[in-house]
Amino acid sequence: MSFILKDENAVFYECGYSCDNEIFISHAEKNFFITDARYGIEANEIIKNAEIIISNDINESAKELIKKLGISRLELNPHDFSLADFKSLSNELGDIFDFKPNFSQIKRMIKSKDEIEILKTAAKHGADGFKRVCEFVKSSLDKGVSECELNYEVANILKNKGEFGLSFEPITALNANAAKAHALPTKNTLKNGDLLLFDAGIKYRRYCSDRTRTFEVGTVSQVSKEQNFKNSKRDEIYHIVLEAQQMAIKAVRAGVRACDIDKAARDFIAKAGYAEAFFHSTGHGVGLDIHELPRISPKSEEIIKPGMVFSIEPGIYLQGEFGVRIEDVVVATENGCEIL
Amino acid sequence: MSFILKDENAVFYECGYSCDNEIFISHAEKNFFITDARYGIEANEIIKNAEIIISNDINESAKELIKKLGISRLELNPHDFSLADFKSLSNELGDIFDFKPNFSQIKRMIKSKDEIEILKTAAKHGADGFKRVCEFVKSSLDKGVSECELNYEVANILKNKGEFGLSFEPITALNANAAKAHALPTKNTLKNGDLLLFDAGIKYRRYCSDRTRTFEVGTVSQVSKEQNFKNSKRDEIYHIVLEAQQMAIKAVRAGVRACDIDKAARDFIAKAGYAEAFFHSTGHGVGLDIHELPRISPKSEEIIKPGMVFSIEPGIYLQGEFGVRIEDVVVATENGCEIL
Repeated sequence: MSFILKDENAVFYECGYSCDNEIFISHAEKNFFITDARYGIEANEIIKNAEIIISNDINESAKELIKKLGISRLELNPHDFSLADFKSLSNELGDIFDFKPNFSQIKRMIKSKDEIEILKTAAKHGADGFKRVCEFVKSSLDKGVSECELNYEVANILKNKGEFGLSFEPITALNANAAKAHALPTKNTLKNGDLLLFDAGIKYRRYCSDRTRTFEVGTVSQVSKEQNFKNSKRDEIYHIVLEAQQMAIKAVRAGVRACDIDKAARDFIAKAGYAEAFFHSTGHGVGLDIHELPRISPKSEEIIKPGMVFSIEPGIYLQGEFGVRIEDVVVATENGCEIL
Repeated sequence: MSFILKDENAVFYECGYSCDNEIFISHAEKNFFITDARYGIEANEIIKNAEIIISNDINESAKELIKKLGISRLELNPHDFSLADFKSLSNELGDIFDFKPNFSQIKRMIKSKDEIEILKTAAKHGADGFKRVCEFVKSSLDKGVSECELNYEVANILKNKGEFGLSFEPITALNANAAKAHALPTKNTLKNGDLLLFDAGIKYRRYCSDRTRTFEVGTVSQVSKEQNFKNSKRDEIYHIVLEAQQMAIKAVRAGVRACDIDKAARDFIAKAGYAEAFFHSTGHGVGLDIHELPRISPKSEEIIKPGMVFSIEPGIYLQGEFGVRIEDVVVATENGCEIL
């Protein structure tokens, strides 16, 4: 089937290169990469399986090419094109488009052996970064380091002198700020006994790692999932989330529905009395995009297959008090899953 | 007029806050900010001029609100909504949308006095960053520092311990790599006598700075526009670009067309024999977005007005040899312009 793409990761998946102004068209086993002169040299150096077309107006060039090739049906992801770009194409080309929501993510949902190896290496480098961050936190105790500074330092520690990119801006949230699932860092300073929620990932060969740990800051802090909190409420909530995460991980195997994995964590948290304090999905696919398919949510009927890679990250958030989230990325197997 | 927005900077401009999952609706002098529970606490803390609506499905909530308010016409920027999001809205609401391309950028094109002050401060912090980067480059001579490492270090130097964000990923391109207008950094190392093209900006209170300097790396390097290159071809090209930039800057005043500013630089470069080596626009608006209106391009008929803020950045790129670009941001005034 012929298709058209704009999304950077979707294009990278097809030809090993992408930039921020591009259209990729695949038709009759030939590929075309349309970009502007700024990216021409690199595109020609890197792309081996597509003809490079340099253009001042990539939409116009795409239309010309589609007409020249006589393409009569073209798959298009309606999330990938703005209304303006789509109108520009369809006003001239008419009704040739088949809407296939997220078809590239669907194609990428089951990872190849090579991709799983890359994702494992990404996860390992990400986990190493968590250890370095933990050492930094210990060395920063009671030195007046703010959440803002912590956030800045942590990003650099993860990047390891430019060796890695970041999957997303790290979340380093202390105490009550950890109750905001996506908190902006504050000027609050890091103190012995603080609860720290740390959610971060690196990119290795463009594939993402993703991990969250919640722990009590102190001289003996470590980033494993075995944690004890001096404060009994924190400790109770932590162990509810940990048990919920373990139940969701146990629920993963080929053939189950994604919503049943979500349900395993959600039911446990609900039984503990915190249903309303877990207000997001249990997980999301991880690959070239930090959020891709499958969704591990109450509504997702997706059947899990071996090679799917996704996060398991339940949480409990108590506004004004604190929040706990624990996250790992797993790869589904025939009989269970492996934590990356 | 009633309008709907999704773009983060457009929403920030209206209410002082934004996040990565939001819809903003303005109708009959009332504003509504729809987001999910992850951002609820912060949205409520920061936004003063809009009602906050927390939703698991912001598209659905937007549709309900539009129906409840009985909105019959709604302005929408077709660049701001994906085809999928637009279809979700229009399938249920029908033909109530007036397409107004980039209406938020148009509204933001003439900056207020306060915004100009913020942009001046951003430019000053950006320029200070360039000086620090130049010192770092001098101290890194012949130490085996690669473009990749340089790029990494430079980003941190600009961020100044987390004080500033970046307008975009800095471009630090040496010699032949500088001929690629948007080069990816290589493993080539920094050496005395190299040509360095450095294009970078910081964000201050969310407003962008943007600047490019090209200079010869050495113990007496400095980042002003007065440069001499030992290599005579580099020196010749540098001074053509500099003269072209000065001619474009002189062409700026209220009442001229943006394309005539572009023409001032382009004609000079063409007369020098390098028309094809200058393959991008002369400039772009700078504000909350790093690229906004007005465009300073051969096709832009926009009439310049006092308070418009944009870059002037001609360049000459000689593939396999080197590239030169010189960029400043200016604010247009009644009789000319001021360099920020």
